[in-house]
Amino acid sequence: MTGPVPRHAVVIASGGLDSSAVAYLLASRGARVSLLSFDYGQRHRKELAYAALVADQLGASHEVVDLTTLGRLLTGSALTDPAVAVPDGHYSDAGMKVTVVPNRNAIMLSAAAGVAVASGADAVAFGAHAGDHAVYPDCRPEFVEQFTRAVRVGNEGFLAEEFEILAPFLTATKADIVTAGVELGVPFERTWSCYKGGDVHCGMCGTCWERREAFRLAGVADPTSYATAALEERR
Amino acid sequence: MTGPVPRHAVVIASGGLDSSAVAYLLASRGARVSLLSFDYGQRHRKELAYAALVADQLGASHEVVDLTTLGRLLTGSALTDPAVAVPDGHYSDAGMKVTVVPNRNAIMLSAAAGVAVASGADAVAFGAHAGDHAVYPDCRPEFVEQFTRAVRVGNEGFLAEEFEILAPFLTATKADIVTAGVELGVPFERTWSCYKGGDVHCGMCGTCWERREAFRLAGVADPTSYATAALEERR
Repeated sequence: MTGPVPRHAVVIASGGLDSSAVAYLLASRGARVSLLSFDYGQRHRKELAYAALVADQLGASHEVVDLTTLGRLLTGSALTDPAVAVPDGHYSDAGMKVTVVPNRNAIMLSAAAGVAVASGADAVAFGAHAGDHAVYPDCRPEFVEQFTRAVRVGNEGFLAEEFEILAPFLTATKADIVTAGVELGVPFERTWSCYKGGDVHCGMCGTCWERREAFRLAGVADPTSYATAALEERR
Repeated sequence: MTGPVPRHAVVIASGGLDSSAVAYLLASRGARVSLLSFDYGQRHRKELAYAALVADQLGASHEVVDLTTLGRLLTGSALTDPAVAVPDGHYSDAGMKVTVVPNRNAIMLSAAAGVAVASGADAVAFGAHAGDHAVYPDCRPEFVEQFTRAVRVGNEGFLAEEFEILAPFLTATKADIVTAGVELGVPFERTWSCYKGGDVHCGMCGTCWERREAFRLAGVADPTSYATAALEERR
């Protein structure tokens, strides 16, 4: 992480590996962190319980914003629309586009920025990383830049001068996040990635593929229980 | 209204004079309009019923997004925080800043843009006007421009090429909106502005002052029942 450390950051927490690492990173640098999660009617709420665990471990506050009435209007995504199946495969597959939730990051970042203004926080942080860029346009650096500008002008006079939207892993790979997470002491076994929300990670959906691959590339033992063997093991 | 008319606009509808005029304007130009209202825990929900009336009159759909859990975190505003009183007086008074809800327009516009993406609409529209600029930074042209850019890059490949955030009255006064509304047939008596949400408009809060003044300046008979006489009448 480059640049100055915020005093107080509202961290968008999904209970996954990336946003948990963001919270640990900021806390390790001495920032106060407040975790904010969203229930937008995603297929499972399991991730909310995992976000609560992270908050507990960091002694941070944790609020859950109920966006379920909005989620019902954000149709067409495999994550919010029961009529659309969660695809198996790698993130780089064209079929992964159905996991895009329309305008999700703008919605969550706007809410988090509002909470930041109300609570005097000088940053909002989230876990976008380079592996997200291909599928999710709202995880790309151009979006973060443009959105930061919009929040600054839209809250002129009400926002800390130095307000930032931080995405400390924006240009990192997920393997880099695993490497950083080891150093930060992120309890990976208490994070949840799988889109499907079964008893254990399915091992087949886009985010399970990516999670597995990240541990393998980082050379870090993966503590996750998966319902299916890794492709390498099946060959 | 200049520029091309959208095919289908998601209109942020507060039940007030401005957003109702926006819905009527777009419908009169042949656009399909879908009304979207927000319950963010504002002092009264009266405005939601008035928005439903507008939708009825236009034969438009109307959805209400429940943001009450978020609203509880947006403390410090007289509109959402029971500990802060709604001030009386003119919008130009410094005291009106307490009616700012942190990042409200970014939050509502983000949600509306998500709904636009999901439903294939090519525009989001809202009722910001020149009289809002002094108090509300998220009603200023710079914000609308910057926010439009953020939404476009954040939804690249998922959004209509020609997607716009429309604020057709952005540089108009509220008196101009009244004048336009007469021509458009906006049923002013079925719109609600007052921040306080009593049986009739209070006549004293910032938005009541502004509403009264708008009719007076436009030279249009004001059909609104107010609990207090206008200042001119009291002198």
